This record gives sequence, structure tokens and C-alpha cells, in this order.
Amino acid sequence: MPDFYLSHHAAWGAYASFVLGTIGKGGGFALSDVHSPQRSVYVAYRQGQEAVRVLPFLTAPIGMGELAFQAEADGQARQAVAVQMVSADELERELGWASDEWRHGPLRLRLLSPFGDVPAPGSDEAAMKQAVCPVVLAELELDNRNGGAPAELLFALEGINRPLSDSTQGQLLGVASGSAWGVAALPGKGVEEVQDFDVIGATFGERRPRVRRLGNTGGVMLTVGAGEVGRLVLALGTYQAGIITTGLDTRFYYTRYFGKLEEAMSFALENAGEYREEARLRDAELAASGLSSERRFLLAHATHGYLASTQLLLREDGSPLWVVNEGEYRMMNTLDLTVDQLFWELRYHPWTTGNVLDLFVERYSFTDEVKHSGERRAGGLSFTHDMGVANVFAPPGQSAYETENLDGCFSHMTFEELTNWVLSATLYGLLSDIPWLRAQTGRLQACLDSLLARDVDGDGVMDADSARTEGGAEITTYDSLDASLGQARGNLYLAVKTWASLVCLEHALRVLGLDGRRAGERAGRAARRITEGFDEQRGYIPALLEGGSDACIIPAIEALAYPLLLGLNEAVSEEGPYGALVSSLRRHLGTALQPGVCLDAESGGWKLSSTSHNTWLSKIFLCQFVAEELFGVPVNPAWDAAHVRWQQLGSAAHGPTDQVRSDDGRDLGSRLYPRLVTSVLWLPRRGGAHDRTSASPQELQRAT
Amino acid sequence: MPDFYLSHHAAWGAYASFVLGTIGKGGGFALSDVHSPQRSVYVAYRQGQEAVRVLPFLTAPIGMGELAFQAEADGQARQAVAVQMVSADELERELGWASDEWRHGPLRLRLLSPFGDVPAPGSDEAAMKQAVCPVVLAELELDNRNGGAPAELLFALEGINRPLSDSTQGQLLGVASGSAWGVAALPGKGVEEVQDFDVIGATFGERRPRVRRLGNTGGVMLTVGAGEVGRLVLALGTYQAGIITTGLDTRFYYTRYFGKLEEAMSFALENAGEYREEARLRDAELAASGLSSERRFLLAHATHGYLASTQLLLREDGSPLWVVNEGEYRMMNTLDLTVDQLFWELRYHPWTTGNVLDLFVERYSFTDEVKHSGERRAGGLSFTHDMGVANVFAPPGQSAYETENLDGCFSHMTFEELTNWVLSATLYGLLSDIPWLRAQTGRLQACLDSLLARDVDGDGVMDADSARTEGGAEITTYDSLDASLGQARGNLYLAVKTWASLVCLEHALRVLGLDGRRAGERAGRAARRITEGFDEQRGYIPALLEGGSDACIIPAIEALAYPLLLGLNEAVSEEGPYGALVSSLRRHLGTALQPGVCLDAESGGWKLSSTSHNTWLSKIFLCQFVAEELFGVPVNPAWDAAHVRWQQLGSAAHGPTDQVRSDDGRDLGSRLYPRLVTSVLWLPRRGGAHDRTSASPQELQRAT
Repeated sequence: MPDFYLSHHAAWGAYASFVLGTIGKGGGFALSDVHSPQRSVYVAYRQGQEAVRVLPFLTAPIGMGELAFQAEADGQARQAVAVQMVSADELERELGWASDEWRHGPLRLRLLSPFGDVPAPGSDEAAMKQAVCPVVLAELELDNRNGGAPAELLFALEGINRPLSDSTQGQLLGVASGSAWGVAALPGKGVEEVQDFDVIGATFGERRPRVRRLGNTGGVMLTVGAGEVGRLVLALGTYQAGIITTGLDTRFYYTRYFGKLEEAMSFALENAGEYREEARLRDAELAASGLSSERRFLLAHATHGYLASTQLLLREDGSPLWVVNEGEYRMMNTLDLTVDQLFWELRYHPWTTGNVLDLFVERYSFTDEVKHSGERRAGGLSFTHDMGVANVFAPPGQSAYETENLDGCFSHMTFEELTNWVLSATLYGLLSDIPWLRAQTGRLQACLDSLLARDVDGDGVMDADSARTEGGAEITTYDSLDASLGQARGNLYLAVKTWASLVCLEHALRVLGLDGRRAGERAGRAARRITEGFDEQRGYIPALLEGGSDACIIPAIEALAYPLLLGLNEAVSEEGPYGALVSSLRRHLGTALQPGVCLDAESGGWKLSSTSHNTWLSKIFLCQFVAEELFGVPVNPAWDAAHVRWQQLGSAAHGPTDQVRSDDGRDLGSRLYPRLVTSVLWLPRRGGAHDRTSASPQELQRAT
Repeated sequence: MPDFYLSHHAAWGAYASFVLGTIGKGGGFALSDVHSPQRSVYVAYRQGQEAVRVLPFLTAPIGMGELAFQAEADGQARQAVAVQMVSADELERELGWASDEWRHGPLRLRLLSPFGDVPAPGSDEAAMKQAVCPVVLAELELDNRNGGAPAELLFALEGINRPLSDSTQGQLLGVASGSAWGVAALPGKGVEEVQDFDVIGATFGERRPRVRRLGNTGGVMLTVGAGEVGRLVLALGTYQAGIITTGLDTRFYYTRYFGKLEEAMSFALENAGEYREEARLRDAELAASGLSSERRFLLAHATHGYLASTQLLLREDGSPLWVVNEGEYRMMNTLDLTVDQLFWELRYHPWTTGNVLDLFVERYSFTDEVKHSGERRAGGLSFTHDMGVANVFAPPGQSAYETENLDGCFSHMTFEELTNWVLSATLYGLLSDIPWLRAQTGRLQACLDSLLARDVDGDGVMDADSARTEGGAEITTYDSLDASLGQARGNLYLAVKTWASLVCLEHALRVLGLDGRRAGERAGRAARRITEGFDEQRGYIPALLEGGSDACIIPAIEALAYPLLLGLNEAVSEEGPYGALVSSLRRHLGTALQPGVCLDAESGGWKLSSTSHNTWLSKIFLCQFVAEELFGVPVNPAWDAAHVRWQQLGSAAHGPTDQVRSDDGRDLGSRLYPRLVTSVLWLPRRGGAHDRTSASPQELQRAT
């Protein structure tokens, strides 16, 4: 069946996307947001005397905009153009890593959103200009080789209000909505711009002129001669001018290179060859990756969503500021997402992770007290959950999300954010930027102090909530999943993450020539405490180490990813210093991956918790990586196929969606989300390959 | 019954309004537009232990914004606040000229949109700063004198994302949506800012803190002590930064005085006393005007709509640029509206009319050819219909509206726009700016040449269409009314307007010391041609002088307004040089004002044309002025009451609406429109009074 899910098509760092994909719901440009504006998108063609074929991306009947002007006085009979709406099942679609292709008969529409390495600002201005240009490309092709008469092709949008030839002296043909977004082509044979209330009538009918400046729909048309193949390359551009954020004044970084929309679109069209080549390379790379078709889709879908939430800003001092916005929630640089998205960023632009970590230090760090046994004690350094929401930077030391006096959703995540900063910093520093890591020496020590201070009884597991919660209690990133994952104190998921943080810290300190034993020693205690939690009868470690939940949770293994990625093979080996922990987690996973435990009985997909039908794909992908890389769990196409169905059917209208029901994949939250790029971990690491041995669930469960 | 029509509350020249009025449809800020965003507006109060009373301005259940985050995991039982939605029939409302007051029990909400004289830019910076500050005020009052416990009051909006105390160090309390709009109060006893998903819960319930930065609703609350009357003054502010327009780069003029939203709101609150006094003066002036309650409403409603469409811009050379946008259509400085709105502007800020006329000359004038008997001939100077649409300036010499090859709606209005510029220029110049008029001497001659050239047979009535229409034909401003008024050639309405243009031109040239006889002579011929059209049997002049329509149209008398307002009493006297014309028009009007002719049989309101049920209120008001002032038609409360019903019932949801059905007042077009300020003509002219004699329709119809 056809794949009709919403997809974003976004230039890197522009926090703007061209949205398309769901039938009958249109799409269009979203600026500083990821929600579809649900405006009509006109993709249409006609061959010879046939009816005009219109792809099913309209949200309203053709030409309605004129009615407001015409009242009832317009009694004129007009020759209507014969139109045939293409039905969904006549369409073919293929999502590539950097492309999205739709086909109908002789028509091909390809949306290109190329991406790749982005060098650090200041190192290569030409590469940066190309990377940040706020434009994606559309390529249209109409094969009229069998046609005995000219054919016409149209790509047009609702919501525009001006032709681009006006402001460019004809150097660009197309239309725009004010100075904010537009679609443009370079002039060429058969290329015309169209603007009208009824863009179908203006393109395919007798109505002239083709530009009526009051029309609210418009785009570019191409006439293709008989016997020819017509090709049209379009720039889909956005431009957000001026100060974009409050709290901290910033502009878009691309304003350094482009003074306005037209300049960006011209640049993209002049360099279309390079953009197309970059898209082609990424598509080919994914096709040749060895990943299954299911995984290729999941990674490609995730990538489109991630790019849509990225935002490279320019501070008043000329320095860059990187933000990944949190999908539908629009929170800025949510630290629990940073730690998951760094797998992507370390591959293509590690400096953005460093940039975010620095801004957390500069503006969103604090030193708190903690609560334990009714008393206040010294806490230590930590970080806020996020930096603000919807282009509003929160005041220093505060997040948009966290609120006192709660013990569920919207409470503070002080401890987990501390582990997130530590893990992000050690991975970024050790894998990509040792000088930066060296500059963090004191801060890493302070983080270690803070981790230890929040573990009052010294068993390696956090037991004191930040005083910032006042009468409430800390939670984890799994805020809305279920109680098994939401509570921070004694949380198995967080305990393993704590252990991983201590292991990574110990390693980082040693690399820096310092004594990391304090960290290592506490990591050992944490490992023991977690291992003690293993329930031989159940075959797993219950989600809350101090009781209160029977849940079996997959994310117990999540944090193994960090030492694994640092190459700390001893630490994650069953023969190493934490062998007992690793063995228990292997056995835990074996139990989890049974139908009725953490495999959904209906869909066969992964449930993060045995006691919740709310499951999060980004975390599934991450845990799949650990399960496969470390424990030899084989790739199971049935699991991945279930996850594909969740995205393509259950949550199709919401684009890349993280929180879904584990039975039918229906969206539960975190729609239009960037975090699913954890799936990049499935790819062979760049410049290397990885060998795996394979293990069945039964093998996993064996006691050592 | 309660009056629940949409109203705009707008600062002068800010092209932004706070919209409120229709029940269950919310409202909120519209920026560079006049359509209601239909967001929830929270006006609520509680006395003692009673339920919270919430005024019916919500569009969604309370607190829904949180659901996207909570998925299904939030099983917590919360103590809900007892809420009682106030029903429409419990509310009282009173629209003043510069105010809009809502009352429920002890609550009073007054929205203030003061206006008044605005001196020309450069003459009084302090006055200009006060005039252009993009803020309107809301005053709330809660009478708790009978209360034995504290009471609380809330004014809050949906769609906000930050508390204002952050960016003002507490100097302002309130909330904003980015840097674009917000609501603010000065700090004071009992004043607190609130932001939450559930602003009712945060204000009246146990939820704390009152500011949760992720919340999408927020505003200002006031706690009122037992036995006290609490008062809260709020700034409702907007700020549109940077280059606002394309085609011609401009910013808002207010950016000269205010660097950002907070500065504008602070200024408005610091100067609240002066703004309130100005609003009070206007309200009192209207109350004491002697106008009936119906007319007071119609003028007040029109004024709110006009202000919402006004826009004072700043060009790159530092000069001002005035735009009145065309309501729902958003066309900029539509010249057929300029000529009607100058009655308002000549009263308060005549320089804006001059500014528009200058920009028409600079950028939107042209010299065309005309078509006559299949040949092209020299035409002359004329002007475009408008200057663009939706902040997009059209290229020089072109409008957004006009299209070739049409003979109905969207065709060219070249001849009528020529009369519009001439009438506007002569009124503005003669009544307000003689030096300006003198500078136009050559242009006035060119306009006269052009008027004459388009009357090829020399009978005073236009008979040659502009070649710009190509295969089409010129139309008039009554584009969507009916054929009786739409066609330009031989159009009675336009013929009288031509005569008036010639009369005014003759006078202007004479005032400038020049020979105006060419104009006067052709005016005489026009008067004869029109008078000859009088059909004694029917008792009126049919709408098309050369046949093709039997319609009787009220706007035949419209253009008498111009010589009348110039004080050319001879010209509009039945004893003067055009006495026969004036007599025929008197008799014409007498016939028109009969039930079944131009009085709607059902509603009793005025129909502009006997053959159309589409009627336009702005033009009715203008023609009422002529009918009363010149022909002594008495004010008829039944007519005005019908017109009030059209606005308050038929088109209530669309605010001030120009085009309505003459039976029930249902909107047909021109919604949210500025032109209804022609009703300002009903007021005594400033500094003078006018005496009228009264005439019945029968008296009007008498032959001379």
C-alpha cells in the first residue's frame, strides 16, 4: 500500500521545513515550527488533450480564494479546465535519506534535502554558506516522449502574495509569501511564473495573464514540447529576518551570507548541481549501507525530522549558537535529547554538540542543594532540562520545562541532566575535541562531586532529590511513559546511566592525566547495587531498585551505549571489571525480548516497559544498537517492520513520532520529533566496520 | 438582546488589533491583518467561595495545551477549580467611540482604543510618539465592596510563550508571544503574572508556581481585598520589527520611538492617564453629538474597523508612508477607499491623505492610451486601483487588483481612479493644504486633459476604456454589486462623479489663479447629459445612460458630496448653474427612497440598487449625508435601525462589514472593512454646525 506519512524537507539549521506527505491535508512551509500549515500544494500536469492530473495534496477546492471578492454578483459562466484528482493508490513514493520521490505516470517529483559534514564556523566560509542556505530543492520531471502535443507541469503553493520576477528583474521566476518563503526557478525555455486565485485555471486554462497579483496561489509551470522530457529545478526557500529569539538576542546564522529570501534561492539554484550531488551521495550511501529496507526507511524518516528541528543562530558577538528544537514541543536544546542526538552530530558536525554543552555551562548550569531524610545537604553542579521554548530563551539557570512541587511530568530532572551533560561531554571531548575536554577538567571534577553528593548512602545510585523540586521529586526523561521509568530515585534506567557516567568520567579523567579512581570506585558500587537487583525468579531487574514496580524495562541497557562507543570494551565485557552487571543486563534483556514482556503481543514491536503500552522509538533504536552490538541480538525484520508500520500507518499524519502505542503505533506524544536519529547508530561507523556474533533470547538469558 | 459582534481594538497606524466580541469564538491579536486568530481570551473572576466566572470568549476547553505532553500517563487526580461559564445573555456590552465595555455582575472590562488629531510627522515628536505607540489599553474593575473575602480577577490570552518579568527585571508583569505581542501591567499591590497550560487553574486553583514557562496561556491577575474595588490597567501591545514590506522596503514608523514590544507597553502604561483621557473625550464627544443611538453605534463600529486597517510606515529615507489596508482583502491604499476615507482623515490627520496622493503620483500613476471605435487614441494621466496587497507593494504603475481582458470584477478602474485622485486632491488641497495644491498645478491640468480625452464625444461622460483593459472593459468601484453599477462607460454613478470632478477642478484651478473654464464647460455638458437621462415615467435616471439597465441607484447622488463639502453651494443648488442636474437627482432620490425600489421590502434598509440585494453600508452612509445635507431627507430611525441589525446580527461575526444582503444583513464581501467611516460625515463639522430643512420623499419627487 502507498506510504502516505508526513515528511519534513528542511535545510540544515534553518528551523524551517517544507512539509508534504499526507493525502488531502496539503502541507507547505513551517517556519520556527514543525507543524504542517496544511495549505494546498499543487502538483499537476497535463498531456495533450487529457484532463489535468492533480496530486492529492489540496486542502480546499480549487480557486476558492476568489469567492471573498466576488460575492454573489459573478454570474459569469467560465470554461472550466477538466481536472482529475489523482487518487492515493495511483501514487508511488520512495523516501531516500536526502530525498523524497513521488511518481505518477509520466510525472516525477523529487524533494531534496541534502546534508553532510558541516565544518566548524570560521574554518570554511564557502562550505558553511552552502550548508546553511535556507533552501531545499524540488526536481520535477515530465516525460512527454510519447506525447504528440506539448504537455504542461505545475508546482504551486497556497498562501503566496507576490511574483518573484518583480523583485529580481526576472532573474527568478516564482512566487513568495512576503519576505518569508517562496518557490523559485531560474528562467529557461518553457518556464513561467503563475499567480492567481485559481492556479490550475491560470496554468492549464484560458485565463490570462498568468500573474494576477491578488491571487493567493502560485508557483512555476513548465511547458514540455512533444517528444521531450521536461525538467524543472525549484528552490523552496525560507528567510527569517532580524532578531529571532527573546531572552538572548540572536539572528539566523545564514543572515551572514544572504540578505534576503531571493539571495538564498538564487544561490541554491546556481549551486543546484552540488546540492543534488550531495543528496545523491547520501541516498547511495544509505542504499549501500547493508541496512534492511525497514531500517533504511526508519533512518531516512528520522533524518528528515531531525533536520526540521535544527537551528543555527548567530549571537550578537558574532559567535554561533546551535539549537535543536524539540519537535512539536519546541523546547530548545532539551538536554535529554542532546545526549541522544549526539550520535548523529558526532558523525556530521560534532562542534554543534560542543556548542550546546558550552551554552549549558555558560547559562543553564547551577549549583543546588539536595533533600535527604528531611534535611538539606550540599548538592552540586547540574544543568537545566532545556534552554527555553519556541525561540524564547529561558532566564539563566532556568528551563522552560521544570516546575517545582511536582513528582510527575514537568518536575525537575536535575540528576539525569547531570548524567546527560557528563556523557555528552565525555563522548564529544574524547571522540572529537580533546582540547575542549581538557578545558573542562575542573568542570568534570565538579560533575563527579555532584554525582557523588546525590548518592548519599554511597551505593552508586541517586537517592537525594534536588531542592529545586521543593515539595516534589525528580523525574527522568521518561516523564510520560509510566511510573516505572518516571521516578528518578532508585530508577534502574537512571542507575545504569549513573554507572555509565562514572565509567566515562573515570576514563576521561585518566585521559587527562588525572586520578579517576573516585569515579571508578563508585561505578563499581553502582554496578553491584544494580546487579543485586536481579530477580532470579523473574529473570530481570525490576524497574525500581527499591521496590514499587514490577516492570521489566528495556532501557536498563540503554546507557551501555556510552562506554561501548568510547571503546571501553573492558567495561562492557562480561569478563571485565563490571562483568556481573553486564551479565545481568544481558539476562535482563533476554527476558525483556519475549512476547508479552517487552514485545507487544499484537504488533510484535518493542515495548520499553512491560507495564506500559506507551513506547518511544528513539529509545528503541538506541537500545537495539546496544542489544545488537554488545549482546549479539540479531536484527529481526519482524520487529523493524512493526516499527515501520507505527510510523507509516499509526502516526503517519504526525511525521516522525517518538511516543506511540505499542499495539497500533498511534501517536501518544513527541510528534514531529528530532530524536529518532538515534537510528544512525545502526550504520557502520564511518571509516570502520563492526563484526557481530549472534545470540537468541534463550542464549541471552543463560546464567554465567 | 446582547450585542455580540466582532470588534477590533487598534492603535492608530499599527496595522494590528486586539479582536474580541463574538461568543465562543475567542479573539486575540491580529498583526498585519484584521482576521481574528480565534484564540481563547480569558476574562474571569471569583468572589469568595463562589465558582470562577469565565466570560464566553474561549475556543477550547481549559488547559488542553498540556495534553500533548502528558500522553496517557497522567493518571493523577487534580482538584479542579469550580468554573461557571457566563452565558451570553448575562453579559452587558456598550461600544463607545473609543471604548468597548463588557459588564457581568461586579466585573467591568473596558477596552480603550483612543484616537484623535495626529499632527504631521516632524511637527511634534511627542504627539507623534503618543499617537503611534502600538498599544491599546484594557481597564478591568472588580467591585468587591460587598465581599467578605478577597476576590480575584484574571485577563489572559492563549498563544503566549514567555513571562514579561524576565525581560524587564520585573518592571512589567504579564506575558508575550515572542517579540510580537503581549499583555502587561505595571507592578502593584495584588498584581501577579500567570503562565500555564491551565491559566484558570494557575490563577484560581492550588497549582503553583503561577508561571510555568511551557504554558501557552497567560496574562495578569489581580487579588482584590474584601470590601475593596480592584482596578487593573493593562497594555495590549504589538510590535512588528524590521522590514515589513516588499517591493518598497519600509518599517513601522513607531520603530523610531520604541525599540521593542516592552518599550511600547511601558510607555503606554506610564502614559495611561493621557490615553484614557483621550478615549473619554471621544466617547463624550460622540455621546453629545446629537446623533441617534443607532448612528452612534454605526460610527463607533466603523471607527474600530478603520483604525485596525491603518498603517504608518517609515521609508528608508526617513519619510512617512501612510497605508490604509482594505479590510479582509488587505489591498494597500485602494484609491476608491482613499476618496471615501478622506472624510475621516480630513478631520483628524489630513496629511495622511496628502501622503497617499503623493505616493500615487510618485509610483502608481501612468499615462495610457484609450480605445474608442476600434482605435487607439491618446488617453492621459491616471492612477492604479491600489498600491499592492498584504504588505507587498506592487511594481510602479501596477496595482494588485487590476487585470486585463476582463469586463467584470478585477478589471481596470482607470477612469474612476482618475476621478478619485482629482476629488481627493481638490478636497485635501483646498480644505487643508493650499501650498500642496499649488504644487499640483501642472498635474491638475493633466488630470483635466485626461478626463476630457476619455470623453471622446465630448458629452461629459466617459466613453473610452483604457487600453490597459486590452480586450476587456473598465469597471467602477462597485465591481461586485451588479451590472448597473459595475460597467464604467455610460455609468450614471460615474457620470455624476465625473461632473463633480470637473466642478471641483474648475474651482481648484480658479483658486490657483488659473482658467478653469475648460473644466466648467465640460461639467455643464455632463450635467446636461445626465439630466437628459431622467425618465419622467419612471421618475429616475436609469443606471446606464446608454441603456442596458433599468436599475434605480442611490449612488447617483454620491458625488454631490464633494462640491458640497468644498462649499460650492451654487454648484449644488437647484438655482445654480447645474440646477437642472441637482433637481433631477433630487427627484431621482425621491423615487429611490420608496419601499420596493431602493428600500428593502423586508428589512427597510437602503439598497444601493433596485436590482441587487447586495448593498454597501459605507456608500449608504455617504449617500445619507448627501440626502440629508443637500436634499433635506430627514434622519429615519427605522432605516438606521435596519443598518444596525445588519452589523450586529447579519454580519456580526465579520465585524464592520461593507457588502451585505439588504434583507438580513448577511455578509457578502468587504468584511472587517475600514471604509464605513464615511459615517463621520453625519457629525457636525468641527468648529461648525449645520442647519437642515426637512423633506419627505414626495416633496423630493416634485418637478421643478
